[in-house]
Amino acid sequence: MKRWRSIWAPDPVDCMDPVAIFRSPFGGKFGIPRQSGLAEDVPGEVHLVGEYRQPDALRGVEDFDYIWLIWGFSANGTAPGSPWKATVRPPRLGGNQRLGVFATRSPFRPNPLGLSSVRLERVDVEKMILYVRGADLMDGTPIYDIKPYLAYTDAHPGAKGGFTDTTSWRELTVVVPDAYAGAFQPEEWLSLRQVLALDPRPRYQDDPDKEYGLTFAGRNVRFRVGDGVLTVTAVD
Amino acid sequence: MKRWRSIWAPDPVDCMDPVAIFRSPFGGKFGIPRQSGLAEDVPGEVHLVGEYRQPDALRGVEDFDYIWLIWGFSANGTAPGSPWKATVRPPRLGGNQRLGVFATRSPFRPNPLGLSSVRLERVDVEKMILYVRGADLMDGTPIYDIKPYLAYTDAHPGAKGGFTDTTSWRELTVVVPDAYAGAFQPEEWLSLRQVLALDPRPRYQDDPDKEYGLTFAGRNVRFRVGDGVLTVTAVD
Repeated sequence: MKRWRSIWAPDPVDCMDPVAIFRSPFGGKFGIPRQSGLAEDVPGEVHLVGEYRQPDALRGVEDFDYIWLIWGFSANGTAPGSPWKATVRPPRLGGNQRLGVFATRSPFRPNPLGLSSVRLERVDVEKMILYVRGADLMDGTPIYDIKPYLAYTDAHPGAKGGFTDTTSWRELTVVVPDAYAGAFQPEEWLSLRQVLALDPRPRYQDDPDKEYGLTFAGRNVRFRVGDGVLTVTAVD
Repeated sequence: MKRWRSIWAPDPVDCMDPVAIFRSPFGGKFGIPRQSGLAEDVPGEVHLVGEYRQPDALRGVEDFDYIWLIWGFSANGTAPGSPWKATVRPPRLGGNQRLGVFATRSPFRPNPLGLSSVRLERVDVEKMILYVRGADLMDGTPIYDIKPYLAYTDAHPGAKGGFTDTTSWRELTVVVPDAYAGAFQPEEWLSLRQVLALDPRPRYQDDPDKEYGLTFAGRNVRFRVGDGVLTVTAVD
């Protein structure tokens, strides 16, 4: 049987130590973009932890536009101890079609490792924080490695992308009533609007009367969706 | 203290299982390209292992041009039990300048995970083998995850690449005397020539009289380097 503890609850006796923890406006998994870069302005912070808080370890990283994060699916993903499944149903295919787990980026995989390229905006070596944009990581996600993005080996802009080439997300029009305009800073609204346009409803749901909610920047945002329009109905 | 065993000597009681093992013409670490894609025609094979040998797990992967491999630095890399260092000396900078470990792709890192995009050429679901090109992995490398390459989230062709933008490898001219032309198949020579042109000498060495060697496709290839020209001197 596998021991998942090091991924699920980092513990110094296990084989991989997180080098950093991700801080995000997303308190829960609901609303998190399904890949990095989809909501490109959403801010996030990579906080180095423990023995990895050494300014020297970041020397030169500020000269890169993007960095890779290799991280653990700590909330989403295969439940500890549960068996992996050979196939998954990508939300992008409407949830009806099964594909091999190694043909998708699904969190439900044998080793629950996530991979995301994020835009590096600023490095604070005193605080040991990397400020990034466009991540698809939840608040509190453990990060196992940080690598520079090297276009000469990592960028294949014309690469055929299987099922992702022929399907696309249905982007929603986002309506925010004036009453809620002051609930967030303008920059926060910019990020939140990108997230809402990506349709953060649980997959396979399409009920215009149902009210949904997500946690963003510590507040609960409620909304309804009908005819391709998402309308914010409350900010608690 | 860290337990590196799961990376160094895969063991079912540890926290991550390899899902596959890499098979490569490179028997040792000597000669392996320093990033994926540098020797783009070098063939390699991803052999699924154990419980991961399920054809369903690969369904749809054949529709992608590239795949990601997340793997363990099993031979190169931080020695088991030895402490990590905050800075490393990238060979690309001549080995004189120190950069933060998170600003490089050095194998000497806190968690010895490698990341490579490789070209997917063919999938054999009966044998559970993915045939790839351009990998920078040694024969026997454990692979922890296989993910499809998605250009819409992974490709940033214009991304600034720090020190890698202003330095480049010195490519060598490769001379193969007629006597050795028959030692490998033409396709093998094509791969081997790419590898030799990348200058596989140990870094910081530049002695035209010294004979070097590397293991390729089960044979020992010897060569000398002088004035930017690499001459094959023996194939044992």
